[in-house]
Amino acid sequence: MIEHLPTIAQLLKQLQQVPYLASKNIYRVVDYLLTIEQDKAEQLCKAILDAKYNIKQCDSCFVWKEHNRQCSFCDNAKRDATILCVVETWQELIAVEKTGGYNGLYHVLGGVISPLDGLGPEDLTIDQLVQRCIAPIQEVILATNQTPEGEATAVFIASRLKKQAIKVSCLARGIPVGSSLEYMDRLTVFKALNERRPF
Amino acid sequence: MIEHLPTIAQLLKQLQQVPYLASKNIYRVVDYLLTIEQDKAEQLCKAILDAKYNIKQCDSCFVWKEHNRQCSFCDNAKRDATILCVVETWQELIAVEKTGGYNGLYHVLGGVISPLDGLGPEDLTIDQLVQRCIAPIQEVILATNQTPEGEATAVFIASRLKKQAIKVSCLARGIPVGSSLEYMDRLTVFKALNERRPF
Repeated sequence: MIEHLPTIAQLLKQLQQVPYLASKNIYRVVDYLLTIEQDKAEQLCKAILDAKYNIKQCDSCFVWKEHNRQCSFCDNAKRDATILCVVETWQELIAVEKTGGYNGLYHVLGGVISPLDGLGPEDLTIDQLVQRCIAPIQEVILATNQTPEGEATAVFIASRLKKQAIKVSCLARGIPVGSSLEYMDRLTVFKALNERRPF
Repeated sequence: MIEHLPTIAQLLKQLQQVPYLASKNIYRVVDYLLTIEQDKAEQLCKAILDAKYNIKQCDSCFVWKEHNRQCSFCDNAKRDATILCVVETWQELIAVEKTGGYNGLYHVLGGVISPLDGLGPEDLTIDQLVQRCIAPIQEVILATNQTPEGEATAVFIASRLKKQAIKVSCLARGIPVGSSLEYMDRLTVFKALNERRPF
């Protein structure tokens, strides 16, 4: 079989570790890589290695930053330094940023507590978060995902922050904009009912 | 925004050209690339560049092969050299190979005739296919996809092969194994009826 050619087998082995390249897609990606011009492939590889070299995590909020520049959040005087939004990964950070409705700082946990995956609180940046929660920070928004692991992580963080004189909030749960009740799952409707607000 | 960091923007630009990395997935891939060990990233880049260097198309059937080795189909004496299966790309070749029910040779077209995409017969390997259709080849199976473009390409190839004393066949159309009629589209049921066979 053609995927047993040594060079293709090695490329497949490397690509299989990249997320979101399912078995069908991976052949198209290999086909793309084999078909493009040599210099395009070199540009792609250069971009990957440049990113490895240039991009580091901010020591304070753990968001990616250029290693020789300041963090675009922590070192940005225009952002509100009294409020902190805690997200699992920078993908969630981008989702929050895209709303255009948040101007505070962030804290990237680097995942969620997930004993089945061998991830405990010590594997995340929770200790660093607790240390950050001093003046001028006044409020921490726990914006973990609405999954069992995300909620458990939020509960854990809230318990760690209990002693600190800080306001801890979480995202509102309810019916997504544009959805109809008919197609919503039971639990979401239940939460939306329970957490109803004055009209 | 974090995706405007120059190094990340460049990586995103390069990755956006890779098929199947939709906007949501691409951030996870970038996250994967930023998170892995330096040497893993280097291995990935080496595999890409090795593939560019080592893998070439066979001059006869246009399947990928190691540049310093023989084609695993054309130069394989165990394969039946009297029958040729014409496929669009090597992804379809892999699908045919996986059946384990075909032992002949292949011919990869490199796509389909698609005027909207600016692809004409001269952009495919149709001329080379017609030239290949001499003894010992006795039968050509047109295994293009069941799309308008795939079928039009098959019709075009069949018309080009008309003058040659060669049997031209195509894949059977009908109800997929395991499917129920109720959920099949009308045209498939119509074709299955029309192309019914003795029980």
